[in-house]
Amino acid sequence: MPLPTSLQPGLSITQTTTVLSPGGRSEQLEQLAIETPYTIALNDETIGASMVLPVGLEEFAAGFLFGQGYIKKPGEIREILVCPEGRVAVYADVEVSAPKEVIITSGCGGTGKISREMLEGAFEPLQECRISFAEISDFIRQALQYSPLGPQTHCVHGCGLWQDGGLKVFFEDVGRHNAVDKVLGAILLGRATPRGAIYTTGRLTSDMVLKCARIGIPIIMSRTAPSSLGLAIARSAGATLAAYARPDRLNVFNAPERIID
Amino acid sequence: MPLPTSLQPGLSITQTTTVLSPGGRSEQLEQLAIETPYTIALNDETIGASMVLPVGLEEFAAGFLFGQGYIKKPGEIREILVCPEGRVAVYADVEVSAPKEVIITSGCGGTGKISREMLEGAFEPLQECRISFAEISDFIRQALQYSPLGPQTHCVHGCGLWQDGGLKVFFEDVGRHNAVDKVLGAILLGRATPRGAIYTTGRLTSDMVLKCARIGIPIIMSRTAPSSLGLAIARSAGATLAAYARPDRLNVFNAPERIID
Repeated sequence: MPLPTSLQPGLSITQTTTVLSPGGRSEQLEQLAIETPYTIALNDETIGASMVLPVGLEEFAAGFLFGQGYIKKPGEIREILVCPEGRVAVYADVEVSAPKEVIITSGCGGTGKISREMLEGAFEPLQECRISFAEISDFIRQALQYSPLGPQTHCVHGCGLWQDGGLKVFFEDVGRHNAVDKVLGAILLGRATPRGAIYTTGRLTSDMVLKCARIGIPIIMSRTAPSSLGLAIARSAGATLAAYARPDRLNVFNAPERIID
Repeated sequence: MPLPTSLQPGLSITQTTTVLSPGGRSEQLEQLAIETPYTIALNDETIGASMVLPVGLEEFAAGFLFGQGYIKKPGEIREILVCPEGRVAVYADVEVSAPKEVIITSGCGGTGKISREMLEGAFEPLQECRISFAEISDFIRQALQYSPLGPQTHCVHGCGLWQDGGLKVFFEDVGRHNAVDKVLGAILLGRATPRGAIYTTGRLTSDMVLKCARIGIPIIMSRTAPSSLGLAIARSAGATLAAYARPDRLNVFNAPERIID
């Protein structure tokens, strides 16, 4: 597991602010999450640029290229170079051809584009697994411990993957999507497998559910809500979709049978 | 002012869910926000497609095209046709030429793309105004009343514009960006002016601040936090940036002098 993001330097800045209230004006220190542009290149061709929290950039680049449909499965990526001037160069055994019709999504994240083809396509079978409610509780508890930048800056989303009885990876980002992309990137880089549960602090709109299902994750959970189309995609893929996840409560919108007592 | 979104049909669906807790399983009804794809065309050329909450679509299309750099100011749009099959056709006195290098942003919204040119460009002077703290309090209070889908679905963001002592427009959307785009669209369609304060429930990342400043709004406020780059852009544009906005408290990160006692 990487260090919790608050223990890593360079991810937030401190700023003096003026607090206005009926009692008058006062000064207060606030922490702001760093948001910085990174360009992603695949086989030396620029694919796009995204605003990110500069941590987990290898995973981000891999997940970004998966979200956009360039990378399809683990094993395709040969090398990733993170350049300090804001560029991540990915080398992979794939053809660089852009998806046809793209839809800009409601995603609070870097990869706010999906192809209509992906949206309407059929799903491969998910990586099956069942997880107990007690394990889910542990997952949520640990995920909250691993996301200190969230409460400090109120400007990042967190996303983690639980498998084989433990929290396998956890990432934060200024984008709801980017945080998920980092987790998916860890799968694509062989650091985890899809056979488990993913938890995000962000809303489960269509694009979020779609990429989790496309990579084969069977249990998709959020601290907050799904949209109508997020639920429709979970049903179509047969994924378990759960929302309002807390250590002592989970609200399951689809396929509750994967969470056992 | 339009009707609060909860009084409009077709914006949410009800779904039975399974609630898991240490006490066992129970059923509960939940409301989900409708998320649906719309394609935006400008002068009969398809510009993009976005996932939206299907309300305020004229404003959304106008704001979307502004966010992407196609529409630059009020008065350019001649006609907007909202087609039931998921397409909004905009006709405007502009050349359809795509921005050069685009950056996919951290935006939880449809228009998650900005051009590097916009990001690094100079700002026109903002439309100056000053607003009292008492008015800001009224604004936040009224904005919360006008966003019923938020607490019902936990899956939408709200955005409103306050000017001349009253709430001028308010919109909700599944995307943080889309909600802002609808407000900017109302300005582009001559239904409001930039001379006032904008409030969003979403985070103020770079792209959010950038488009509000580009259209000339001097006071930009959020229920939650800005990012580092959101603050940098507000400084560069000279905009007032306020966060954690509540009826009785406002945390000003830049240019507090526009909010008077």
